[in-house]
Order: sequence, then C-alpha cells, then structure tokens
Amino acid sequence: MPRVRVNNISISVDGYAAGPGQSLHNPLGVGGERLHDWFFHTRSWHQMQGTDGGDEGQDDDMIVRGNLGIGATIMGRNMFGPIRGPWGDDRWSGWWGEEPPYHQPVFVLTNYPHEPISMQGGTVFTFVTEGIHVALEQAFDAAGGQDVKIAGGASTIQQYLRAGLVDELHVAIAPILLGSGERLFDNLAGEPEGFQCAEFVGSPSVAHARFTRRAR
Amino acid sequence: MPRVRVNNISISVDGYAAGPGQSLHNPLGVGGERLHDWFFHTRSWHQMQGTDGGDEGQDDDMIVRGNLGIGATIMGRNMFGPIRGPWGDDRWSGWWGEEPPYHQPVFVLTNYPHEPISMQGGTVFTFVTEGIHVALEQAFDAAGGQDVKIAGGASTIQQYLRAGLVDELHVAIAPILLGSGERLFDNLAGEPEGFQCAEFVGSPSVAHARFTRRAR
Repeated sequence: MPRVRVNNISISVDGYAAGPGQSLHNPLGVGGERLHDWFFHTRSWHQMQGTDGGDEGQDDDMIVRGNLGIGATIMGRNMFGPIRGPWGDDRWSGWWGEEPPYHQPVFVLTNYPHEPISMQGGTVFTFVTEGIHVALEQAFDAAGGQDVKIAGGASTIQQYLRAGLVDELHVAIAPILLGSGERLFDNLAGEPEGFQCAEFVGSPSVAHARFTRRAR
Repeated sequence: MPRVRVNNISISVDGYAAGPGQSLHNPLGVGGERLHDWFFHTRSWHQMQGTDGGDEGQDDDMIVRGNLGIGATIMGRNMFGPIRGPWGDDRWSGWWGEEPPYHQPVFVLTNYPHEPISMQGGTVFTFVTEGIHVALEQAFDAAGGQDVKIAGGASTIQQYLRAGLVDELHVAIAPILLGSGERLFDNLAGEPEGFQCAEFVGSPSVAHARFTRRAR
C-alpha cells in the first residue's frame, strides 16, 4: 500500500528545521541554510542545478532513496513562498525557478484559493484550501499508486504527524547548533508515537535517522 | 585553563534528555532509560558495575574521554535523587549505591541546606545553596586544575548554558523518538551561541556531536 513519507528533513542538533526570521531573502531563516550544507555537497543537488560534480556515497544515496517511489508531494504555503495572507499579484510560482525539481503534482496547503500553476518539467502546483486530509486524498489520487511525500515546512509535517498520518519519518541531523528558529518536533501532543528506528547512519556531515510505522 | 564540560548527555532525535513523569521508580522518566541503551552496552558501564564484558570501540571511547581530565562534578538535585522540597529524613545518598562512580567531589545544586555526604571510593557530595556560580567556583577549587563536568539534568545544563559558562557540549543522540519529556535544548534564550562542531561520529547505537567554544 502507498505510504506517507517525510524524507531528508534537516534539523540542527538543538532541533531546529529553520532558523529565526524566515523571509524572502532568508527562506530557511537566519543561519538556516547551514542545515543543508550536507545536501549542497551531493551529486543529486548538482544534478538538480544542471551541473556536474558533487559527492556520491551515503548522503547522496539517502536523497535518491528519499525521492524514490514518490508520486506526489504536499507542502505548506510557507515552503512554497514568502507571501503571507492573500496571494496579491499572483505572479509567485515557487522558489525553484521555471523548472522545479519535483516533476510531479505538488499540493500546496493554503487558506487562500489560487489557480493551479503548471511549470516546465511536469511540476504542477495545485492549491488546496480544504485542509490536510483533502490534500492527502488528492495527492494519493495523483500519485498513481506511489507514495506521497510531505515536503515541509515544519508546521505542515507537524500537522500530519499530529493526525497520525505519517508512515515514514526520516530526519537528517546536521552537526550545528542554531540557538533559535522553528522546531521540527513541537506542537505534537505526544506524537510521533509507535515509530521504530529502521536505519541510523552517519557521515561527517549529517546523521540520518529513519523511523517507520506499520504499513498503511 | 580548566574548562566546563558537558559530556555524553543522551537525547532522543526529538530532543528529550528524559522521558515524562520522572520519579523514584522512573528516574529517567517513562521510557527514558532507552536513551542510555548505547551506554549499557559499553565496557565502561560494565566496569562501573564491577562486571566483565561490554563493547569497546567508539562509544566506549567517548565515555572514557568524557571522564578524562575531570576533577569535580556538578549536578542538579533532581539528578541526585527523587526528593523534592526539604530533605526530610536525610538518608538518601544518591542513586548509585555505596560506591558512586564519581570518585571525586560532586557538588549538588539545591535550595535546601544539607551536610556533605562522604561515600566509599572517594565521592563526596557537597550541597550548594548559593547558585550555579558559587557551585562552579567551589568545583574549580576542588578540581585541582582539572576540568569541571556539568553532569545534568537538563535544567542544570540549561542554567550553565544560559550563563554562557559551558566550554564543551557533547551530546549523544539516540535513534529513538520519545514524544514527550524534558528537552535538553529549551529555555536557552538563544544560547548556545558560538559553538563549533569539533567532532561528529556515529555508531549504529548513537551519534556523538561534540561542540566546543573558545578556551577559557
């Protein structure tokens, strides 16, 4: 059965998935880009940028596996862009340029209706105003039998964890201390519960902890 | 110059240094003993218990190094025992039996005066009611030029971090999710600041992240 997965979510050792003060110029918050240093070194990242190089090995392997078998992606609107409240002039189409790296349906959770946006390379952003359950239903329909990824940010992942809807949770722990920012494991009311560690491996850049729950 | 060190503090991937509901029967909180599974497998633990066996290797090495060069230890009273409020009948002498594994001066932070307690093997518990700075001063005096360890629990470590007094912070991340409990990185008002990762290594049981700040 297809599953709901969270993969390669970076957190600092003190638990932050983003630094403080997220904005247009600091989409990951102040200092937050350091969470992703390990990512920027990988071959997968270079391929996403259309450049050669980057490291293969364990970290790259985790990225490849994190995308494998994913048929649709869900994200919060703050991961989609810096706009808060009504959409306004409507020209924002994500952080990722004309050809986002998703190449598949992406469902954006928002309180404000928005027409779908078709990007180059197959990514279609669909905006869902009816909440996380409807978004998940639509994502499973679009995924054609494959898994659905909850891409982020932290509050979106928290909503799905709180609802007990996540089957796999894979956290990448970066060896930094941010001091403040947005926690991944917060507002969870005792969740996540019932997860077992399926894999725990480290490189000098990051430690990967992959937890799984019962198959769906 | 001697330093203030925190070593081998176990936290879960979701950031808890103890489970919920700490008590006489659950000194580490419900489920909290799982934080220390990696520790119970080591040769050092077996030696502390006076038994043979246990694994050598990286995790054991971290324990050995964490104790190396330590001349005195500071802990909170909740780490010393389950008694809250006044000391009462006065017979409690710690969780560790007649010969605690410290073999050196241990300073216990408390609001309630208590006579020192001398244990077998050289451990002397001294109770400090004048706060963290006085405790640190006394510990440095007692350490004879060696480093001082802040042993725990979480709130004691937080007090020293908040005061900017910690020079080395070594966290052992266990591959579990506790869901609730006492966070290590909490109530820190932006601290820890200025720490660099000096070492980041993992075993299948635990990932060690050691951060250091300027020499004292």
